Amino acid sequence: MNTFSELAVDGFVISGSTNRRYFSGWSAEDHAPDRPSGVMLVLPSQKYLLASPTNLPWAVAEALPEVTPVAMTLPWTEAVTSLVRQQGVQRVGFEDAVLPVKAYRELQQLLGNDVELVAASDVLDRQRQVKSLREQNFLRRALAVTDQAFVASAAALRPGMTERELADIIDDNLRSAGSTGTAFDTIVASGPNAARPHHALGDRAIQNGEPVIIDMGAKVEGYCGDLTRTIWTGHADEQLGTMYRLVAEAQRAAISAVRAGVAGRDIDSAARAVFAAAGREDLFAHSIGHAIGLRIHEAPFMGQQSSDVLTAGNVVTVEPGLYLPGWGGVRIEDVVLVTEDGCENLTRAPKLPGVDDKGHGPA
Amino acid sequence: MNTFSELAVDGFVISGSTNRRYFSGWSAEDHAPDRPSGVMLVLPSQKYLLASPTNLPWAVAEALPEVTPVAMTLPWTEAVTSLVRQQGVQRVGFEDAVLPVKAYRELQQLLGNDVELVAASDVLDRQRQVKSLREQNFLRRALAVTDQAFVASAAALRPGMTERELADIIDDNLRSAGSTGTAFDTIVASGPNAARPHHALGDRAIQNGEPVIIDMGAKVEGYCGDLTRTIWTGHADEQLGTMYRLVAEAQRAAISAVRAGVAGRDIDSAARAVFAAAGREDLFAHSIGHAIGLRIHEAPFMGQQSSDVLTAGNVVTVEPGLYLPGWGGVRIEDVVLVTEDGCENLTRAPKLPGVDDKGHGPA
Repeated sequence: MNTFSELAVDGFVISGSTNRRYFSGWSAEDHAPDRPSGVMLVLPSQKYLLASPTNLPWAVAEALPEVTPVAMTLPWTEAVTSLVRQQGVQRVGFEDAVLPVKAYRELQQLLGNDVELVAASDVLDRQRQVKSLREQNFLRRALAVTDQAFVASAAALRPGMTERELADIIDDNLRSAGSTGTAFDTIVASGPNAARPHHALGDRAIQNGEPVIIDMGAKVEGYCGDLTRTIWTGHADEQLGTMYRLVAEAQRAAISAVRAGVAGRDIDSAARAVFAAAGREDLFAHSIGHAIGLRIHEAPFMGQQSSDVLTAGNVVTVEPGLYLPGWGGVRIEDVVLVTEDGCENLTRAPKLPGVDDKGHGPA
Repeated sequence: MNTFSELAVDGFVISGSTNRRYFSGWSAEDHAPDRPSGVMLVLPSQKYLLASPTNLPWAVAEALPEVTPVAMTLPWTEAVTSLVRQQGVQRVGFEDAVLPVKAYRELQQLLGNDVELVAASDVLDRQRQVKSLREQNFLRRALAVTDQAFVASAAALRPGMTERELADIIDDNLRSAGSTGTAFDTIVASGPNAARPHHALGDRAIQNGEPVIIDMGAKVEGYCGDLTRTIWTGHADEQLGTMYRLVAEAQRAAISAVRAGVAGRDIDSAARAVFAAAGREDLFAHSIGHAIGLRIHEAPFMGQQSSDVLTAGNVVTVEPGLYLPGWGGVRIEDVVLVTEDGCENLTRAPKLPGVDDKGHGPA
């Protein structure tokens, strides 16, 4: 990390599970924000990973070669303070976007006036934005597993099935395709429920001809897949056909706009312009997308409120949607790898039965 | 809440998913600590729940009757600042154990000098420690579902099955018994792996006569079940018999010590004394237990480092274990409801085939 000089620090305390996994290789989650399973002290010449004696063998088994696991027999703030002193660190970066105020105050009191704490989340999180080839490989696998599970699940959909039944089928297919858990709780939203982008699962029975939004993601080696498709059984009504074509067109426009150096906001605007031309902009109730990685939502973000700019090596979702209260909605989401001159679409799941790549159909 | 007078505040900002669910009824999780799905402003006369327009219908559908959902069209720190000003709040409690430093600093800057932020996690979290009858009912259901899934899964165990295969069976049984997701990632640790209390799942094939630690928990209405059993196929070796009886005895001693007014530390000591008498105290590598609720680990905690004291209405785990590196381990966990004069054991899962309630056997 050349991040040391950027902040003029001689060490980083890493207490959140995402960066801890990224920098150490250890896959432990935290049971709560205020109870980290372990903590790292990263120095220019050495990376320490503190874990409880209980967890130490697990940490040793997974830690990257350059990481030194150490048994932590005190509360983590005391343990890391002791290591900071022992190593003579004087300015130490910490994860201000993750570390709770209470733990920060404890740490500050323990370290005293000799050691200065420096907000470092921006610098640390930025490391994760450009995916290495190894990370791209994990993401490709997570997306391939997701695609495969989607195809098997869509084939199993029958009218009369409940949202929850379909979600269970999806989760089974994710697991048998190779997912460890899921990247997030699977969404199945049918008919009027499809008008709620983050609808919680219910026991509503799916009817012929109405939209069924499926939003799902595998997890492979900690990396998250993310896929949304809108499907239906029987004959789609006219509204669904019109909405579907419009969302597909907005997605093509947005994907065409993706390229290193472009602001995330401009990708969102590209989709929004398509909706605006059809007088439907007000029905696009969220932003066009976000990066994925060890977290399902991470920077760069791509909405009107974001000032993030895309870089080659970012892996981002492109997921326009239209939501009409009372009727339902349509969302289509692919994941793309940003390149210098455009992007590579990493999602292979077919779009719709009856809808071709040009957005023609359903009749 | 009489918590207003305790801290001399006229409002609380609640930004973490656990307390947000507890005080509002809305089940949304947060995608990351720095990206809450919503935020509450709790005043003596009114409880506001701010959620994005996307999430608002979901929040409205689940919010408790006394909660007023409000559309949040700005970043949450700006939205809540605007509401704080509009309501004339001057001293506002915040969740210092959860709120990250970065968000706190933003909030502080936005609120300016007129409004004082007061650390309130202790006071807010304490509300959740004594479970209402409604919460006890959810916990009983979560534990019953867990017990039922354990019995079905233990019956399916065969030598040669891998840890992962058994864990998949457990997760299926949890789901069909009525669990929504799981309270934590299911643990199956066999043979030498059982020496690691938080072992991650592997492809190791389970052998006859060796310990298999199963640690599992259903989730019902957001409330967590938690159950550990150590089982085996075929004939247990002598070591396993000895260790099992010792852990069972330590658990009985600890459960006998549970009562309102007793320090959590003393419950831990009761188990530790049994191990010490057998010269095995060094093999008990964690604390005796913790409360469960909307979080799988919450206060009161019951370890040598904790100063928490039990109260009637707490629901806590009692889970002694012995871990012998290279050989394996034994852990047994029940969940009890603390009462004025003792406790009620809420766990119904049988202890061991071959081991009776007095700790006799296996031969």
